[in-house]
Amino acid sequence: MNEPVFERLALIGIGLIGSSIALAARKSGATRHVAINSRTPKTLRRAEELGLGDSYHADPGDAVRDADCVILCVPVGASGEVAKAIAPHLKPGAIVSDVGSVKASVITQVAPHLPEGVHFVPAHPVAGTEYSGPDAGFAELFENRWCILTPPPGTNPEAIERLHDFWRRLGANVEIMTAEHHDLVLAITSHVPHLIAYNIVGTAADLETVTQSEVMKYSAGGFRDFTRIAASDPTMWRDVFLHNREAVLEMLGRFSEDLTALQRLIRYGEEDKLYELFTRTREIRRGIIAAGQETEVADFGRPHGKGKDHA
Amino acid sequence: MNEPVFERLALIGIGLIGSSIALAARKSGATRHVAINSRTPKTLRRAEELGLGDSYHADPGDAVRDADCVILCVPVGASGEVAKAIAPHLKPGAIVSDVGSVKASVITQVAPHLPEGVHFVPAHPVAGTEYSGPDAGFAELFENRWCILTPPPGTNPEAIERLHDFWRRLGANVEIMTAEHHDLVLAITSHVPHLIAYNIVGTAADLETVTQSEVMKYSAGGFRDFTRIAASDPTMWRDVFLHNREAVLEMLGRFSEDLTALQRLIRYGEEDKLYELFTRTREIRRGIIAAGQETEVADFGRPHGKGKDHA
Repeated sequence: MNEPVFERLALIGIGLIGSSIALAARKSGATRHVAINSRTPKTLRRAEELGLGDSYHADPGDAVRDADCVILCVPVGASGEVAKAIAPHLKPGAIVSDVGSVKASVITQVAPHLPEGVHFVPAHPVAGTEYSGPDAGFAELFENRWCILTPPPGTNPEAIERLHDFWRRLGANVEIMTAEHHDLVLAITSHVPHLIAYNIVGTAADLETVTQSEVMKYSAGGFRDFTRIAASDPTMWRDVFLHNREAVLEMLGRFSEDLTALQRLIRYGEEDKLYELFTRTREIRRGIIAAGQETEVADFGRPHGKGKDHA
Repeated sequence: MNEPVFERLALIGIGLIGSSIALAARKSGATRHVAINSRTPKTLRRAEELGLGDSYHADPGDAVRDADCVILCVPVGASGEVAKAIAPHLKPGAIVSDVGSVKASVITQVAPHLPEGVHFVPAHPVAGTEYSGPDAGFAELFENRWCILTPPPGTNPEAIERLHDFWRRLGANVEIMTAEHHDLVLAITSHVPHLIAYNIVGTAADLETVTQSEVMKYSAGGFRDFTRIAASDPTMWRDVFLHNREAVLEMLGRFSEDLTALQRLIRYGEEDKLYELFTRTREIRRGIIAAGQETEVADFGRPHGKGKDHA
């Protein structure tokens, strides 16, 4: 258990997720060496100042050389380009993975670039905060959170097993499913919630009759909790919506249909039906607490006091 | 400052807000005596077991007798009925107030019942948690939260002043506006956010392709934070939507219009416009933190560790 899972780990991208993996992998001893690449010189320097890794590389090809495992921690839309850049430098037998919130699109973008003998095991740790960048990371981010692996049919079982072990060492629970099912599940549990949070914050910003300062002052009534989600990284989320377009539009269609029905219940004063709906939604909350995915206080996947406020 | 604002305070209804007022009023010395009424015998007994007040009354008329201030802490839809029941027993010069999340409807329901010489000052403390009942209250609920007073034109200025003082003693900041403006502001900052949270939790519950257990397992991606809001008291919220129907439907119409536009940006892959929207929403979050209405960790208006988990 104390042997490292990977001798050498390379992280391409060092934002919230990349830096949290770096910290967690070193803390848990899941790897001996963390090689870090960022395409932004300032970010790479900051990662070095923070001491997140063991070596720092301006060139992604340099970072992945001799690595047993390479994890792409970049916005989903950049996956193909990064895969192309690292492909010629990958060690035979290396495992390539990612952390994208969308899986089918990442497979389509990455798989064609990878050479024979390199194992591609896509992954998605379902954890995050509204902060971004290398300062936002913390080693406990993945503790008791789910990490979903979506290996395409025919993926080397041993490679899957090793990546599974790696994420367990970082504190995550691991589940395996198809990329298509993942994208549908995440559309409703993550993508559409983010979309409607962005949307209502936008709606509030455009009002003529209520000032923005009033919106901020009285946000404790519920709005505030949407702004947290709507403060998430704009590049990451733009890519998520564009790369999981079909599933997002499907779930959004259902949401809008239900909202229209709810609007009608209010217009026609359907007291009993409203009460029934609001009671049913309470049950789901209880299920989430029972499933260990929530604590008494909302922490957005972040143990209290561990996240840093860079807003 | 240490003199009580009211010798005798009567609370009609002892749920989350009523019990928090009881605890805060006694702790701050804002009153000498708290008389409690609940129409539910079990709730009244529980309030007594918890020692929330100084006297307990099954009859609302008994509770308000000799009270200098009476606060209705009942669902908005019950305000008229309660006002009618207490009206004959009110002391001349007493202040009657409430805590409803909707103000114009409460004024319409309550004002006609009140005798000459009684001062009606409607109020709304913008604070709460997703828990309900007398066990859910805590004295710090109103600290640094806003309490909005919406006195109708012609209200006795001294009565407004005294209620203002009372809420300041409970730790709240006090603002005065018209009932109509209040209802519009709260529609966007509180009512519509609750409505869409209830709605998405309902949508998720109805899916055929994604199981409820998957929804719960992977809820850390964003969905979870909506379920907290959607676990709020069903009776209270049913009444809010029905009694602030016009403003809620107006804001909901804007929200849906914006959501349709956003859906179209995703369908047609409008990268730059999506990025721009998601960047703008981040600013609003910063404004809320600057306005002192948010802490690093989401606490839903509740100081950490103070709320109790009865879910």
